[in-house]
Amino acid sequence: MPNKKIRLGILGGGGDSLIGVLHRIASSMHDNYEIVGGVFNPEHEESLKFARHLGLDESRVYKDYETFINEEIKLDSEKRIEVVSVLTPNFLHFPMAKMLLENNFHVICEKPLTTTYAEAKELFKIKESKDLVFAVTYTYTGYPMVRQMTKMVANGEIGKVHKVDAQYLQGWLNPVVHDKEKRSSTWRLNPKVSGISCCVGDIGTHAFNMVELVAGSNVKKILSHLNNLYDDNPMDVDANILIQLENGANGTIRSSQIATGEENNLRISIYGDKGGLKWEQENPNYLYHLSDNEPMRVLKTAHPYNYDISNISTKIPPGHPEGIFDSMGNIYNGVAKAIKKQKFDSVEFPSIDEGVRGMDFIEKAVKSHQSGNIWMNLD
Amino acid sequence: MPNKKIRLGILGGGGDSLIGVLHRIASSMHDNYEIVGGVFNPEHEESLKFARHLGLDESRVYKDYETFINEEIKLDSEKRIEVVSVLTPNFLHFPMAKMLLENNFHVICEKPLTTTYAEAKELFKIKESKDLVFAVTYTYTGYPMVRQMTKMVANGEIGKVHKVDAQYLQGWLNPVVHDKEKRSSTWRLNPKVSGISCCVGDIGTHAFNMVELVAGSNVKKILSHLNNLYDDNPMDVDANILIQLENGANGTIRSSQIATGEENNLRISIYGDKGGLKWEQENPNYLYHLSDNEPMRVLKTAHPYNYDISNISTKIPPGHPEGIFDSMGNIYNGVAKAIKKQKFDSVEFPSIDEGVRGMDFIEKAVKSHQSGNIWMNLD
Amino acid sequence: MPNKKIRLGILGGGGDSLIGVLHRIASSMHDNYEIVGGVFNPEHEESLKFARHLGLDESRVYKDYETFINEEIKLDSEKRIEVVSVLTPNFLHFPMAKMLLENNFHVICEKPLTTTYAEAKELFKIKESKDLVFAVTYTYTGYPMVRQMTKMVANGEIGKVHKVDAQYLQGWLNPVVHDKEKRSSTWRLNPKVSGISCCVGDIGTHAFNMVELVAGSNVKKILSHLNNLYDDNPMDVDANILIQLENGANGTIRSSQIATGEENNLRISIYGDKGGLKWEQENPNYLYHLSDNEPMRVLKTAHPYNYDISNISTKIPPGHPEGIFDSMGNIYNGVAKAIKKQKFDSVEFPSIDEGVRGMDFIEKAVKSHQSGNIWMNLD
Amino acid sequence: MPNKKIRLGILGGGGDSLIGVLHRIASSMHDNYEIVGGVFNPEHEESLKFARHLGLDESRVYKDYETFINEEIKLDSEKRIEVVSVLTPNFLHFPMAKMLLENNFHVICEKPLTTTYAEAKELFKIKESKDLVFAVTYTYTGYPMVRQMTKMVANGEIGKVHKVDAQYLQGWLNPVVHDKEKRSSTWRLNPKVSGISCCVGDIGTHAFNMVELVAGSNVKKILSHLNNLYDDNPMDVDANILIQLENGANGTIRSSQIATGEENNLRISIYGDKGGLKWEQENPNYLYHLSDNEPMRVLKTAHPYNYDISNISTKIPPGHPEGIFDSMGNIYNGVAKAIKKQKFDSVEFPSIDEGVRGMDFIEKAVKSHQSGNIWMNLD
Repeated sequence: MPNKKIRLGILGGGGDSLIGVLHRIASSMHDNYEIVGGVFNPEHEESLKFARHLGLDESRVYKDYETFINEEIKLDSEKRIEVVSVLTPNFLHFPMAKMLLENNFHVICEKPLTTTYAEAKELFKIKESKDLVFAVTYTYTGYPMVRQMTKMVANGEIGKVHKVDAQYLQGWLNPVVHDKEKRSSTWRLNPKVSGISCCVGDIGTHAFNMVELVAGSNVKKILSHLNNLYDDNPMDVDANILIQLENGANGTIRSSQIATGEENNLRISIYGDKGGLKWEQENPNYLYHLSDNEPMRVLKTAHPYNYDISNISTKIPPGHPEGIFDSMGNIYNGVAKAIKKQKFDSVEFPSIDEGVRGMDFIEKAVKSHQSGNIWMNLD
Repeated sequence: MPNKKIRLGILGGGGDSLIGVLHRIASSMHDNYEIVGGVFNPEHEESLKFARHLGLDESRVYKDYETFINEEIKLDSEKRIEVVSVLTPNFLHFPMAKMLLENNFHVICEKPLTTTYAEAKELFKIKESKDLVFAVTYTYTGYPMVRQMTKMVANGEIGKVHKVDAQYLQGWLNPVVHDKEKRSSTWRLNPKVSGISCCVGDIGTHAFNMVELVAGSNVKKILSHLNNLYDDNPMDVDANILIQLENGANGTIRSSQIATGEENNLRISIYGDKGGLKWEQENPNYLYHLSDNEPMRVLKTAHPYNYDISNISTKIPPGHPEGIFDSMGNIYNGVAKAIKKQKFDSVEFPSIDEGVRGMDFIEKAVKSHQSGNIWMNLD
Repeated sequence: MPNKKIRLGILGGGGDSLIGVLHRIASSMHDNYEIVGGVFNPEHEESLKFARHLGLDESRVYKDYETFINEEIKLDSEKRIEVVSVLTPNFLHFPMAKMLLENNFHVICEKPLTTTYAEAKELFKIKESKDLVFAVTYTYTGYPMVRQMTKMVANGEIGKVHKVDAQYLQGWLNPVVHDKEKRSSTWRLNPKVSGISCCVGDIGTHAFNMVELVAGSNVKKILSHLNNLYDDNPMDVDANILIQLENGANGTIRSSQIATGEENNLRISIYGDKGGLKWEQENPNYLYHLSDNEPMRVLKTAHPYNYDISNISTKIPPGHPEGIFDSMGNIYNGVAKAIKKQKFDSVEFPSIDEGVRGMDFIEKAVKSHQSGNIWMNLD
Repeated sequence: MPNKKIRLGILGGGGDSLIGVLHRIASSMHDNYEIVGGVFNPEHEESLKFARHLGLDESRVYKDYETFINEEIKLDSEKRIEVVSVLTPNFLHFPMAKMLLENNFHVICEKPLTTTYAEAKELFKIKESKDLVFAVTYTYTGYPMVRQMTKMVANGEIGKVHKVDAQYLQGWLNPVVHDKEKRSSTWRLNPKVSGISCCVGDIGTHAFNMVELVAGSNVKKILSHLNNLYDDNPMDVDANILIQLENGANGTIRSSQIATGEENNLRISIYGDKGGLKWEQENPNYLYHLSDNEPMRVLKTAHPYNYDISNISTKIPPGHPEGIFDSMGNIYNGVAKAIKKQKFDSVEFPSIDEGVRGMDFIEKAVKSHQSGNIWMNLD
């Protein structure tokens, strides 16, 4: 019996879109998706042109997402697109995902899930009543060594967790924010377009998700100190956030887009009473395991000493680096298992729950700061 | 006008083959190939099963490569497979590539090109008379920072090159070679299957290719010291090779498969009268630029300070790691340009010339050692 | 004319004391001190024994510090000890330093300066009225690359500073604090012996001093979140502190003694609108210089491209590592210049002012936490 | 009973001499030497001036080494200098060490031991008939992690050694050698002053010594390929040397002074059938332990998991870096034990045997190259 590839539709991600390339390649890596159609661009002509570039059947390329949904559901179930990747600007995530869920499509949605926590909760409620898969692409969770780290903590290899330290440092906003002209014109720093937070919303939320995943515990409360740098800049470009976890651990989440010269420096360190673990996104194939009385061990991908869930997340033997495309590919592979109702591990893709928590985090981070840097409980 | 994807056929690489996954993903990354058919497995049933897994049209899956070629050439030129990736065991490279060339298919061939230098030269001769593209997949040359390094040297940024030091260290053969039973039964150490060299043929040749590419100069002569470790082992598992380049530089190529605990530690350092450059395969997104009187600079991918050919070899902004799949993807992308007769840079894929030189290197390395570690000229 | 070495006395540091070895070697490195006498141990017999081990004249070894001072001041000014290193447990720093100042000895005091901020201010007041040198040995400030970093920031090489991130992570307390028996018996966690803070007082204060030194700006206010881990433990073992600097920069100081497996991981990162700088104590001979649009530069010791004050802080050419003994040696060398009234740079040793600020920081950190994690102004 | 410090004399090392500072500080670190006198400079006035700077008794400063020896031996045995450090230019090592031995002084001699192998053997012969300590300061062997490495290999922790790879790369000669004027005038490239080899003699010999120490086996034969770069340059500035050890292992020693931008990059890797070990001089407090099937372990100084001989070679807890001064200090400490006839481990200082082997290596390296790159047996 032939491999029935899952029929994938895409909203957004056309032209030179980086996120588009990332999702397309990711979807192809494990031979379980077939890109069938979508809406790649607000301009229908551009969308068609892009579809031709991909070699797609133009009849499955629609002028907008409403048409996409309305037309696809008319198709025979053997032909109809099954899952849709939502790669559009943030404010479109909510209406698109909502209508997709209501019409029984599985959804793969870029983060942040929505632009407000209220929207996120609404989506969650809809999803609860459906037997659908809903993934939120916190891309970095797909790395094999993040999965290894998560399992090591869960299995008690570092004992009871008492400290977590996460950072996500970028510098790309630095040349923008210091220029009055540029900072007032970029959409990134326009709350009407980007929501209430720039730095926390864009990258702090990745670090937050990573903390909860790896620690195996929710964050209970946060105290946030944001920095807009200039009075005329309405949005945060830097954030230092104190955290307390349900499991009793304390820590920080520090994120910045003005850490000049930093590229994509996401790191997480976690310490328990038996050991510690450290991981860095820019060197993702290494995991550092510390202990009180043994030499540090440097774990690498694809070794028998790793957990299975880590090793099935690599495609190649030790010493052959894999990167961000492979990480996203692992998430798509996990989603495929869920859609096919195969057995999968909860670490294989971030679910809508994690998307909802991310929105709660963003809003409370802003609120804590605006209230004078006080503790706020997450729901 | 729609994107006419290049029709790609594959010989070998079925089932769980790692090399198969690598080539398939690589071919899909830049939206310019479509896998159409091939022979994935010596067992036709397995081959068909695998084709179904890939979602291919079974009519384009053949029982052997001769049939593949004979049938494909009957097809209309708009439908016929244009380029074929040869991923089979080494001894099949030659007959397959030969027949493919003779029947006017472009070829992408895994290294080593053939099992003997004579075969390689014969292929080269056939290819010379054809207007065809022939790539040899020295995979590591596709990394953006290898390309950056090559261009920096070529543009005189380290001045006149006077020293090159290359190593390729693995340890995986260690548990095999020390076990009499295992070493006498593995095909890797059986010259009838694997040719005259294990370590030099398998990985030394990568380092050799990298040296010539990056230095921008051919190796003129070599003096080789091989190690088989045991008298009953007919093949080298470790090699230390002195080299002299046409441009006057000296250096070494050191390769090993008994460097216990090493994974895939390919490194190259090159020094000129103005500076030095160092690169490591296991951390491929970094390039180290040394000079007499300035701090070392650490170049990373996707920055405007890199050469264009390096930056077009990345798909994503700085700080997002790419790996070996992306590296091979860049080679496939280069081949696509050549097939489409678009402009391309010679670093974009290794050609048959480089495959031929690799075979010369392997044979001379063995000969130098057998002759008492004397200098041998390469052709 | 012979080199008149400065006559140095030592209080504490006898037997196997690590701090004793560190100061003795440091004092000898630049040929400008001669250890003459002191009180090495509360037990006079032990003290004498140790003096013999050092080859000292026993007549200059006294039974207690009062006797030391009272006897030494009777000696001829050409013979009398000129400067005294105070290496005793913290609670003795204040009475010893006070009496030394009052009797016109220069002082080199281990940190923390005193056990309370009030004592520190009292010492400062006495010192103000004297023409004496008073150094506080924040050891890590003596490293050449810390001095380089300080000068680069001061000279605007990273532009206006807007972000500082400091951490000082150790794990050694981990096996103690989780054991009820041990945590109730160690003097480290006994406030009567160790003052009001363990982790902030012991190491957070180093990070604080480093921040102010390198940023070239005082910390204006802090908000502290401490962790004692157990209710029956009266002292902090982990601290996450938000900071705001006078120059407008924000950041964190994170210190821990339960970061399991960490050794002495003091790091500081500082970002301005033109670039960033990063330094790590465990690899002290490297300084990382980031910028928006240039490759990261890795500065190393003893190169002409460094500032003079960095290069005179090394004794040996590039590539020969120096360590903590050399760092402390540089501080002693700076103190010697000040005593000899030679020209010196303010970075050459931390003064009493820095010791006083350290005590303010410790007390406010505890107070901020006890008050519910609120902002506290430093004086 | 007072600590009788060993009375140390010094020949050479005056003024700004780097080697002088290194030895003086090293001798003081463990409280077991007292510098008493010597000849610091060929100019007696300079020598006296330097002695005053050190605070020495001028009566023990002599006009030349013959006078030094002749006068010192007249002194009472309780007063007489016991051990002499020879820090002069290479050609003086032999006559000085010879006369010192003949007059029953212990000797600490800088490397290379002499300027010819014949001289070295002659010294060795004299020393054999004496009950004296003779150390050759291969400085890098004093690092704690080199000692740890040596013991781990000796105790079989990596199994039977089958591969050794050593490099010592510097770049400082690069700007000299490419300038015709400079290369013809520097004493370094003048064989009359510097002996028959520049690069092998100066640094290759360090790597050679490290190989034999760590592998626990002598090098049996070598095949050398040297590079002078210019025809008018009579001396090697770069060397690639193949080696075979008595224990059956193969490998290379690569040394260079034209590896542009390299500082003092001495590295050694050693592989056995159970594991591998790697160490780098520029990051000396780390030791990397590889194995086939376990994560790499990163050993650091001062941990209980190290051998005692490693831990007694540190003065301070984990995470506090020590450097080259501390390394040399460990060698002096070992020599002190030997002089005092205390128990010591053979790794605690390199003996005259190692100095002699170094000279054999240098001469055979040059001879192998001059003979057309052939294998030469070491004695």
